[in-house]
Amino acid sequence: MGLKIVSIKSSFPYKSENLNSEKYKKIIKATGINKRYVSSEKENVISLSIKSAKKVLNSKLKNRISFLLFVSQTSPYKFPSISCILQNELKLPKDIYAVDINMGCSGYIYALKLARSLENLNNNRKYGLIICSDTYTKYIEKNNNSCEPIFSDASTATLLKISKKNQFQAFDFGVDGSGYRSLILTENSKNMFMDGAKVAIFTIKEIPQFIKKFLFKNKLSAKNVKYIALHQASKYVCDKIKEKLKFKNSYFLENYKKYGNTVSSTIPLLLKDCIDKKKLKKNNIIIACGFGVGLSWGIVKIKW
Amino acid sequence: MGLKIVSIKSSFPYKSENLNSEKYKKIIKATGINKRYVSSEKENVISLSIKSAKKVLNSKLKNRISFLLFVSQTSPYKFPSISCILQNELKLPKDIYAVDINMGCSGYIYALKLARSLENLNNNRKYGLIICSDTYTKYIEKNNNSCEPIFSDASTATLLKISKKNQFQAFDFGVDGSGYRSLILTENSKNMFMDGAKVAIFTIKEIPQFIKKFLFKNKLSAKNVKYIALHQASKYVCDKIKEKLKFKNSYFLENYKKYGNTVSSTIPLLLKDCIDKKKLKKNNIIIACGFGVGLSWGIVKIKW
Repeated sequence: MGLKIVSIKSSFPYKSENLNSEKYKKIIKATGINKRYVSSEKENVISLSIKSAKKVLNSKLKNRISFLLFVSQTSPYKFPSISCILQNELKLPKDIYAVDINMGCSGYIYALKLARSLENLNNNRKYGLIICSDTYTKYIEKNNNSCEPIFSDASTATLLKISKKNQFQAFDFGVDGSGYRSLILTENSKNMFMDGAKVAIFTIKEIPQFIKKFLFKNKLSAKNVKYIALHQASKYVCDKIKEKLKFKNSYFLENYKKYGNTVSSTIPLLLKDCIDKKKLKKNNIIIACGFGVGLSWGIVKIKW
Repeated sequence: MGLKIVSIKSSFPYKSENLNSEKYKKIIKATGINKRYVSSEKENVISLSIKSAKKVLNSKLKNRISFLLFVSQTSPYKFPSISCILQNELKLPKDIYAVDINMGCSGYIYALKLARSLENLNNNRKYGLIICSDTYTKYIEKNNNSCEPIFSDASTATLLKISKKNQFQAFDFGVDGSGYRSLILTENSKNMFMDGAKVAIFTIKEIPQFIKKFLFKNKLSAKNVKYIALHQASKYVCDKIKEKLKFKNSYFLENYKKYGNTVSSTIPLLLKDCIDKKKLKKNNIIIACGFGVGLSWGIVKIKW
């Protein structure tokens, strides 16, 4: 058995902010991020996720959901898990498998891997959900100049179907906790910390190598890959990875200009745009690679 | 391929508290919990988990670890995930799969299921870790009489081996988010809330039925089951489930008296005691069932 993507939908906070101020003039050149979405006090990962999930579900599909993986690092609760709250809010069956996964920029890839163990749940239903949502802006105070012009709030819902065809054909993962302090939010703190330079240096050193190794191992090259979906950390980081990979620009999907760095949602948003614009044909190969907070990274080969 | 348990080890905070005071005289009759372990300011889920993990690992095994699932609801950080920090602290290889799972009393069962998708990671290593740790006592203030005499801090490390033999033969899961407010801790709060009566009523109504259904579906009965490992919520809850299941007392593993309700660690602690006392023989069948916060529940058939 395998898994395939049926649809991906998104939701954003009502309010977006233009970053084109004098304060950030210089930094925008490097980040490429012109605006960010900022959740209000009334919006959080729960409300955003209900919105995105409702877009992929109808009353018939709700009763056919078998599992729900919720990827987030910005829950308003320490417990219970948001996946439980979403079960009730979305009126999903009670005999589903539902957990929260605390993982950021690489979280979508980690969740896709876990979803593969849930294909054979005993409840005989054929659909599963991966919901990603982060609201980092809630933990960025006004003077936090390294985070404010980067992070943006969003939610995405990916509806998966358990099927004979399996789109997710190879995975690789990595973790390096020695860098855990370079992107951190202590409980009770309202102001996250990012050592942007440290994270960027690490990423630019490790991630291109990691991708190259994966491509080699799986016999992938510019000839048989259609698109590369990198986590949208910033223009600077994505450009540096591109340079080192030596694939033409046209291979790289991009959304940082439009949405900012939406943490766990950047990759599903890239895939969503592809689907919406009908850019994907049968057997197209997409390489999706997430990396960041942890530090942690993951890569998947998707055969459409 | 399959998974089997190699060893389980635990660690507790240095300090334990006797609950046998006049204040809790009446409640101890119902809970059966005489003492609880209370983490100090210097102890947290990270330090406890390093201790328990080091007990199952040696320098050779460290290099053969393929994945690390960390189950907790009481991390001192919103991000990064503790599994990343543990990778570094335990000196595990960098190309492991590591995530945090936010799930409480049923979390161990949920993690065992996820571990099944990690058998075929490409890193060719044969061992995996599930580390559970919760320090609920950090979020219980002195006047919190419904939580103080129940919850206790601990960590357990379960070393799993990827093998032809598979011990985890059947699973079932459930979630009911309509009860999410009955056991809750809001971010920034230092005092968790539990509506003990509500959780108990729900558990006593749903869990025996859930277990019975699982036993029937998997053709299990007093004849072929050796032990039942219930989440150690309290004496009252465990006794009520026992009554309804109509298995003799000798089937039920127990540790609430000794350790209190250690949330995600109750079930691995029950299994650990069984292993330590050499109570398990080849082909013995153990049914382990977790339930609680979420509300959420899960059950597994383990064939030793």
